[in-house]
Amino acid sequence: MYKTIDKNDIDFLLSVCEKDDVIVGEDISEDFSHDELGGVEKYPEVLITARSTEQVSKIMKYAYENNIPVTPRGQGTGLVGASVAVHGGIMINLSKMDRILELDEENLTLTVEPGVLLMTIGQYVQERDLFYPPDPGEKSATIAGNINTNAGGMRAVKYGVTRDYVRGLEVVLPNGEIINVGGKVVKNSSGYSIKDLIVGSEGTLGIVTKATLKLLPLPKKAISLLIPFPDLEMAINTVPKIIKSKSIPTAVEFMERDVILAAEDFLGKKFPDNTSDAYLLLTFDGNTKEDIEKEYEKVAQLCLECGAYDVFISDTQERNDSIWSARGSFLEAIKASTTEMDECDVVVPRDKVAEFIKYTHDLQNELNVRIKSFGHAGDGNLHVYVLRDDMDEKQWSIKLKESFDHMYGRARELRGQVSGEHGIGYAKKGYLHESQSEVYMDIIKSIKTAFDPKNLLNPGKIY
Amino acid sequence: MYKTIDKNDIDFLLSVCEKDDVIVGEDISEDFSHDELGGVEKYPEVLITARSTEQVSKIMKYAYENNIPVTPRGQGTGLVGASVAVHGGIMINLSKMDRILELDEENLTLTVEPGVLLMTIGQYVQERDLFYPPDPGEKSATIAGNINTNAGGMRAVKYGVTRDYVRGLEVVLPNGEIINVGGKVVKNSSGYSIKDLIVGSEGTLGIVTKATLKLLPLPKKAISLLIPFPDLEMAINTVPKIIKSKSIPTAVEFMERDVILAAEDFLGKKFPDNTSDAYLLLTFDGNTKEDIEKEYEKVAQLCLECGAYDVFISDTQERNDSIWSARGSFLEAIKASTTEMDECDVVVPRDKVAEFIKYTHDLQNELNVRIKSFGHAGDGNLHVYVLRDDMDEKQWSIKLKESFDHMYGRARELRGQVSGEHGIGYAKKGYLHESQSEVYMDIIKSIKTAFDPKNLLNPGKIY
Repeated sequence: MYKTIDKNDIDFLLSVCEKDDVIVGEDISEDFSHDELGGVEKYPEVLITARSTEQVSKIMKYAYENNIPVTPRGQGTGLVGASVAVHGGIMINLSKMDRILELDEENLTLTVEPGVLLMTIGQYVQERDLFYPPDPGEKSATIAGNINTNAGGMRAVKYGVTRDYVRGLEVVLPNGEIINVGGKVVKNSSGYSIKDLIVGSEGTLGIVTKATLKLLPLPKKAISLLIPFPDLEMAINTVPKIIKSKSIPTAVEFMERDVILAAEDFLGKKFPDNTSDAYLLLTFDGNTKEDIEKEYEKVAQLCLECGAYDVFISDTQERNDSIWSARGSFLEAIKASTTEMDECDVVVPRDKVAEFIKYTHDLQNELNVRIKSFGHAGDGNLHVYVLRDDMDEKQWSIKLKESFDHMYGRARELRGQVSGEHGIGYAKKGYLHESQSEVYMDIIKSIKTAFDPKNLLNPGKIY
Repeated sequence: MYKTIDKNDIDFLLSVCEKDDVIVGEDISEDFSHDELGGVEKYPEVLITARSTEQVSKIMKYAYENNIPVTPRGQGTGLVGASVAVHGGIMINLSKMDRILELDEENLTLTVEPGVLLMTIGQYVQERDLFYPPDPGEKSATIAGNINTNAGGMRAVKYGVTRDYVRGLEVVLPNGEIINVGGKVVKNSSGYSIKDLIVGSEGTLGIVTKATLKLLPLPKKAISLLIPFPDLEMAINTVPKIIKSKSIPTAVEFMERDVILAAEDFLGKKFPDNTSDAYLLLTFDGNTKEDIEKEYEKVAQLCLECGAYDVFISDTQERNDSIWSARGSFLEAIKASTTEMDECDVVVPRDKVAEFIKYTHDLQNELNVRIKSFGHAGDGNLHVYVLRDDMDEKQWSIKLKESFDHMYGRARELRGQVSGEHGIGYAKKGYLHESQSEVYMDIIKSIKTAFDPKNLLNPGKIY
């Protein structure tokens, strides 16, 4: 169906790009054949390092005219195979388009190229007393990757998700045309919101080549509370009560002792406490220590009333860093503790988190497979990992499917969604299909066709 | 092209609805032939008062099969003709589906029917110490109307717009199918965001029959500052400096003396001060008086440094109400001061507001037409009114077009958008088309076709 890359195509690509930016066939590094989780594997036929929007536009136009599939790629930190070239063709690596283009302090916007890393943005704005709130665990992801999955991260409880901070986008469409949607404006009611359709579309509707982000003033202070509980259910059941008490922490994470132990192993550093079975980790931010204290005192009291053993206050940068760097390493730590794993990134209503996690605990015993989890108790987004350990290929494939079928099924019953922030990509297509009506899937397909009638941009993803 | 309503159609509608809920031909009230501004006029052939999603679904399915256009309608408070049945057919009035269905305090969501008024929601949640931040001036609009225009209102500076508070929707599609998008979940990365496509689509992609809204805890206190300036340019030029100072007020409105005088006339009540040419009206909210004072003191100082005559602090409910009810009456007051008017609702980057308003002042003299404005200086969304006064039909049509051509043209040059929050509807189609590329308009059209291949749902709007 798709055209195979030949010498003419390579000649064209060399006419658009520098020689070193066009890598063909076996010279392509293995890194570009998979993403972070590695369950989906396939090499592109040619790998392009893009340096400008014009290049991306010319290549996309050529690919469109010649029926060649194109896969956009950032840092490859995804977990669902969205940036894997499952149909071969051209992969466009955007990670070298990584300049910060403009800080506009009067409109509180930052305009960046797609390959800028989340950690670069964080540091850049913080140095200028500004704040880009979305805070996914993976700080070495590109901003365009975050936009394409509508990444949420830790601070979604108080500050919302990536979508809420994207004001404008420059996008190369599947036919190579360049469009600008949104801008620096705060409000917009001028036709369908193509910007919001591109956000979360996993590189299937257009290639993001520039983004204008909304910034906030930097809260001057943040204090974290680490709160040990006798068990996880008790910990998580406290969260809806915190919300109901009209307190909105910046973050509410849950963690279990064995994940903390894995992180200690992985980092070679001790966590402030590992004696309890389960913990909540809360952050509060504000402009003065007193403001924040007022806010967290009632929450601390509420946690103690709900059975917490203690409340450890962490108000130094050093201690905060130690706790949050452990939290940031959970995925890597769990990955290092087994041979292979796959992830279920469901989101359920906040008051159903405890029920879902209890279900995965029971499932672990019932199916005799290790299942580890951590996640965002405050926004209902869970990261649940099924571990292969010493299973052979066949056992693993059966066990994984069985675990996923159960978990996605349960999430549906609890009125959850297949993915909170990691997307559908290639790996979760079946579960999206099961969770949605035919009508919904038909709409998704017609929108894709409206943008990309030849199905050339990142084909094989989402549906 | 469309089928004209006949007796069979009426019989079908009577089989789905109560007799009193089906009104035909000349029995239809004149109210339903236009919206608030009245520039677009046309009667539907039949007016249905809907009582349930199932009714809406059945009627839509019938209309789809029989090629009859359908126009959804709320309170008719729109300003661009989006809820006028420009092709006749069936109008579905959803304003009687007005129940609050569920307050979920653990997930901080409110689920409502489409016809609930904004003021009803505001009061309901406030009584429960909760907060629905979007605050458009027109409080008697329905929530579905707000969703369909992605209304922003006064508090967008700090809290964002309607889109940011819509978590889930139930929607009747043009073919009559019912879909649910989103839900109570805080994060979502599960396929294209149909929810965000429906928000702001002005009833052209589906009929919203239920909405789940995100709530916040109610800030315990709000203080307003009324700040007189020697002239409007000086007032508005202060706003980017306020933003740059890292202070985010809840609202930043600008107003001129003659609009204040019109409001005094209209309401028969004095405004706290009317001696200066121009004013900024700022609000700050928070949980204690002290917190808020800390916040506004530096802003007050900054305004004085930028040339403000004084800073009037309004910290009693009574005084706040008096100022904000005047602000809320500006549209009505301007309307009452002339024979007819039309509105330009552009949004420009925050730092271009002064430039745009100065342009409308010059235009007023140049074209010899009265142009009055007020609006949201903090988010760049302006409401600019061209007044007919004693012009005859022909003069008015020429003068209005000339004024609009100039203003929308200038907004484009300043990288603004045609509409900040009132939508495109029927009246502003030409200006949307001029401001967007062919490519963008083609995408809009293909999305519409994907949802509504027969172009039956609210046809003749947006493009």
